[in-house]
Amino acid sequence: MTATPALRVVSNAPTAKAVLSQGFDRLLALVDADMRATNQLIVDRMASKVPLIPQLAGYLIAAGGKRLRPLLTLASAQLCGYQGTRHHGLAACVEFIHTATLLHDDVVDESDLRRGQRSANAVFGNQASVLVGDFLFSRAFELMTADGSIEILRILSSAAKTIAEGEVMQLSVASSTKTTEADYLEVITGKTAALFAAACEVGAVVADQPEDAQEALRLFGLNLGIAFQLVDDVLDYSAVQAKLGKEVGNDFREGKMTLPVLLAYKRGSAEEKAFWQRTLEDKTFNEHDLDHAITLLQKHGTLAATIDRARQYGAAAQSALSHFPPSAVREAMLESVSFVIERDY
Amino acid sequence: MTATPALRVVSNAPTAKAVLSQGFDRLLALVDADMRATNQLIVDRMASKVPLIPQLAGYLIAAGGKRLRPLLTLASAQLCGYQGTRHHGLAACVEFIHTATLLHDDVVDESDLRRGQRSANAVFGNQASVLVGDFLFSRAFELMTADGSIEILRILSSAAKTIAEGEVMQLSVASSTKTTEADYLEVITGKTAALFAAACEVGAVVADQPEDAQEALRLFGLNLGIAFQLVDDVLDYSAVQAKLGKEVGNDFREGKMTLPVLLAYKRGSAEEKAFWQRTLEDKTFNEHDLDHAITLLQKHGTLAATIDRARQYGAAAQSALSHFPPSAVREAMLESVSFVIERDY
Repeated sequence: MTATPALRVVSNAPTAKAVLSQGFDRLLALVDADMRATNQLIVDRMASKVPLIPQLAGYLIAAGGKRLRPLLTLASAQLCGYQGTRHHGLAACVEFIHTATLLHDDVVDESDLRRGQRSANAVFGNQASVLVGDFLFSRAFELMTADGSIEILRILSSAAKTIAEGEVMQLSVASSTKTTEADYLEVITGKTAALFAAACEVGAVVADQPEDAQEALRLFGLNLGIAFQLVDDVLDYSAVQAKLGKEVGNDFREGKMTLPVLLAYKRGSAEEKAFWQRTLEDKTFNEHDLDHAITLLQKHGTLAATIDRARQYGAAAQSALSHFPPSAVREAMLESVSFVIERDY
Repeated sequence: MTATPALRVVSNAPTAKAVLSQGFDRLLALVDADMRATNQLIVDRMASKVPLIPQLAGYLIAAGGKRLRPLLTLASAQLCGYQGTRHHGLAACVEFIHTATLLHDDVVDESDLRRGQRSANAVFGNQASVLVGDFLFSRAFELMTADGSIEILRILSSAAKTIAEGEVMQLSVASSTKTTEADYLEVITGKTAALFAAACEVGAVVADQPEDAQEALRLFGLNLGIAFQLVDDVLDYSAVQAKLGKEVGNDFREGKMTLPVLLAYKRGSAEEKAFWQRTLEDKTFNEHDLDHAITLLQKHGTLAATIDRARQYGAAAQSALSHFPPSAVREAMLESVSFVIERDY
């Protein structure tokens, strides 16, 4: 065996609580016992006779993260009055799929920082990250199969496919200033919102809810996911790095055509357009280019415009919840939408 | 969109027929119509609104390859007297899972050559290879879900997990002269034989056969897969490159501890052991090291010993088929085992 950093996987990794502020605190408190059970399953079910697998997967999973997607499954199930325990395992599957895509993303993006620490590929190498991602992905499907719902398998396999399509599309349109807002929306719907939507829909399906309730929760997740990614793309230019847990300006350096940039390009002078082409398309960077990029985004108000757009999607997410009668968990889910939009990390 | 080589995906890619010699010819003739239907489904079902996906997947799939794994599903179904058409789609799923692992392997191995042409990652880049692999993998599960058999989902998700475990284990033990034969067997059982076994078992399950028939076909595939990989590991040192379709000596350069090397290390003098340590462990290569490695393998007869081992597994595979009454397809499957072992590419 090659030497790998010895990492103990702790059974109760610091969950969202430590990371998120009050917007989520109520929601977290409501699903606290469920989230503990889910965390335990996450640790138990990434076990393998090949030690590097839980080491590497545990490195990323123990690093914390918001556990946002499994939280959505648990909250949705509770909203639907679910009384069983199947949602714990399914929430773990959702997190496995998410973790697998993170591992592959970091290889694709060649990122060095993730959740405030060195990314798994930087520590363990690209090879291990690709393969452990494959393990988590297959393991999720194995566990879903054991759960036995073809409907849930359909939802999550379709989401996984849509994520991959969104990521490939991002690769195809990356760095092109010809990328349209419609292209961008399709990319983020695929790479981010599809799993948010599926995570919520699964909560309704496990609770055996009728189709209109499933659809309401799917729409809640879909719109929340789009809002979440819009805000993420703003934070990549505006956040305080220590809070964000990853490098500010990553998207800029990778030439990702996100909405703040798309809008600034469209509104920019010929000279400004040339700046975006030199940096994003040609990847020719000077020392103060990131600062200049941020100045241009601020000048054209495109960070604020993107947040406005996120608020619209957030409102659509909240509106989808009107399908359900008032309850503590519904209130907390409504509030958490506001947090997703107003957060600064 | 970034420029990618314009590749037409042909609906009837050169199948095994062009590649394999007579050992498989009878088997191929018996499943010819099924294989055509499967090839058509492979092309249809890798379609995506994101053009790079069918371009890249089609590049690898159109490159030919032996289509060995879907062939096993089709032959196994026929052996069990299956009369429907579900096996076409399931064989396509098996090929998608295999293709996904090839795409990820080539990224992991940094290979430049696959099936006699530049590997997909060399042409399209590592990023696209990782993500299109993810697409094919998810798509396979989406299609299996549409097929609707939880039993088949169980078999193939478990196989996919075992493949990933085998690959990670290979990464962990690679380059270590401490690797044991048991480690090696576990690696190849995971990375290769698990999917052979699953491909065959699926043929029995789709034909609604009882458990003992499923188990017989699983054992046939498992033993055939081990024999196949043993021979592959011999060919990496002994094949004529133009026939092999990939570079001879790849395993040596990557420090893979395969059985021919394990045995030669065990049987070697202190000086020879030092040679293997310098090359495989330290990756310090001189110009004629590959030639010297081959000389050592020949001196200790370890290539022949590995083929002998493959013959034993081949015999076990053939023996498993005695569960089934004589038939043309059973004869052809028995013969194909001999071909897998005696092939020179």
